[in-house]
Amino acid sequence: MTVNIERLMAADRRRVDECLETLFARGESAPSEQLDAAMRHGVLVGGKRLRPVLLYATGRALGASDEALDGPAMAVELVHAYSLVHDDLPAMDDDDVRRGRPTVHRAYDEATAILAGDALQTLAFEVLADTGHPRLAAMVGTLAQAAGRDGMAAGQALDLDAVGGHPDLTALATMHRHKTGALIHAAVRLGGLVAVPEDDERLLALGRYAAAIGLAFQIRDDVLDVTGDTAVLGKTSGADAARDKPTYPTLLGLKGADDKARSLVDEAVSALAPLGEAGSVLANLARYMIERDH
Amino acid sequence: MTVNIERLMAADRRRVDECLETLFARGESAPSEQLDAAMRHGVLVGGKRLRPVLLYATGRALGASDEALDGPAMAVELVHAYSLVHDDLPAMDDDDVRRGRPTVHRAYDEATAILAGDALQTLAFEVLADTGHPRLAAMVGTLAQAAGRDGMAAGQALDLDAVGGHPDLTALATMHRHKTGALIHAAVRLGGLVAVPEDDERLLALGRYAAAIGLAFQIRDDVLDVTGDTAVLGKTSGADAARDKPTYPTLLGLKGADDKARSLVDEAVSALAPLGEAGSVLANLARYMIERDH
Repeated sequence: MTVNIERLMAADRRRVDECLETLFARGESAPSEQLDAAMRHGVLVGGKRLRPVLLYATGRALGASDEALDGPAMAVELVHAYSLVHDDLPAMDDDDVRRGRPTVHRAYDEATAILAGDALQTLAFEVLADTGHPRLAAMVGTLAQAAGRDGMAAGQALDLDAVGGHPDLTALATMHRHKTGALIHAAVRLGGLVAVPEDDERLLALGRYAAAIGLAFQIRDDVLDVTGDTAVLGKTSGADAARDKPTYPTLLGLKGADDKARSLVDEAVSALAPLGEAGSVLANLARYMIERDH
Repeated sequence: MTVNIERLMAADRRRVDECLETLFARGESAPSEQLDAAMRHGVLVGGKRLRPVLLYATGRALGASDEALDGPAMAVELVHAYSLVHDDLPAMDDDDVRRGRPTVHRAYDEATAILAGDALQTLAFEVLADTGHPRLAAMVGTLAQAAGRDGMAAGQALDLDAVGGHPDLTALATMHRHKTGALIHAAVRLGGLVAVPEDDERLLALGRYAAAIGLAFQIRDDVLDVTGDTAVLGKTSGADAARDKPTYPTLLGLKGADDKARSLVDEAVSALAPLGEAGSVLANLARYMIERDH
């Protein structure tokens, strides 16, 4: 099972990467070549492409074609990429390296990194608009709510507040639900909206699925930061502790955090019941969240 | 005439400000109160609200209701506000004061200002999506193209490159067309799209109008930076020269710049011919561009 899901993930990763390459294949026609190059540096960085993978899997489970899912898959990854470019800035997490390459503000400069992040976010909405999908209003609303003051941006603000503090489990979950959970939820919902109307009850079930895997994914991240190998992770293990960042292992212990992640995955799989057999790939993706070693 | 146009502008400014106030009137229900407060600080700053004023005037000229224009008017102002918050950052123009108040990164901190700008941009697209307008795809596309790598963000990148350099008139016009012209163009086009379909020929005429007033507005800004009074301007006069920023007066002389602005306004007014009498407010707004003293 694990092999199959990894093969599927690799195929979808290639698919969305090819779409993104095309989006940036315009060479000298860009008004500012440096801005385009910095945006490209920020988004074409490899990585798991987890959000597009979830979006494709959800859309297919509800009957959408791959072609109809490409635009939303790029859009959600562009928002994720913009957030990484800005999170890495000196005023935020101050990271010099991401996936073994210099971060955008190190490869270019801070002003260019701010603008590149800004323009990656804008491009996400442009790509979404280009789909001309009949449910575009719901799709733009879903992505914006997940990214903005009620979602990811709020989560990052809460995270910056929390460093060096002592949040309890509820505060930690609230932060993660906004910072990473909201966009994972949006990925799943966007995939669904390509295929079915807003009032389709399966979207509610998928919302519960997404909430559970979003948190499980984050807990696994926290656990890997303690137990993982820097070479496999592609980022420095132990970084959270070094920054005095609150994590699930510090609040629950390693075993407690692991148990919590497993019970969330069970919850996610149960939520898929209304999808029947069509939900099997999503169930495998949920299990992957806690089995992955990077 | 000048009195009437200023009264109209004041009324539209109040209208969009009230809409924006409502958008931020949610007090303690915000996930991050600090983020919401910083966003509010960035957008509820007074100012001319030129882009909403143009949007309302264009929409009305083509028959749209004020209510239908409120969402797009907020959206374009939110994008403008986000760009100011980010442009003021230390890594960009490094400004401490805007309209007599501390800039967002001075009132809060740099990380919060980056996030507030990010979330103001996101909110623009959320507000646009909330209109549920049948031409939403064209509207989101218009705003995104104006804001992103082919518009405002590219213009800011070109502007940062130009400081201390010696661009010619063509390079200066290209920079301004992207940095400020694109969003002014989007404001006019969005107002039009609320009322008429994409293929309405009046939108083409309005595009020519917007391009001309966008550049005239910028030239007047450059002129006022030399001749204006700091108290009336609400910002430090002479700031461009102090920064060694290329401007129209440095390239054309004060009189040459003024003549250029006047001929652009004539061009803008001529472009309005297909609108007939309905274009009269827009013509007055064009004349205001070069008559204003702040």
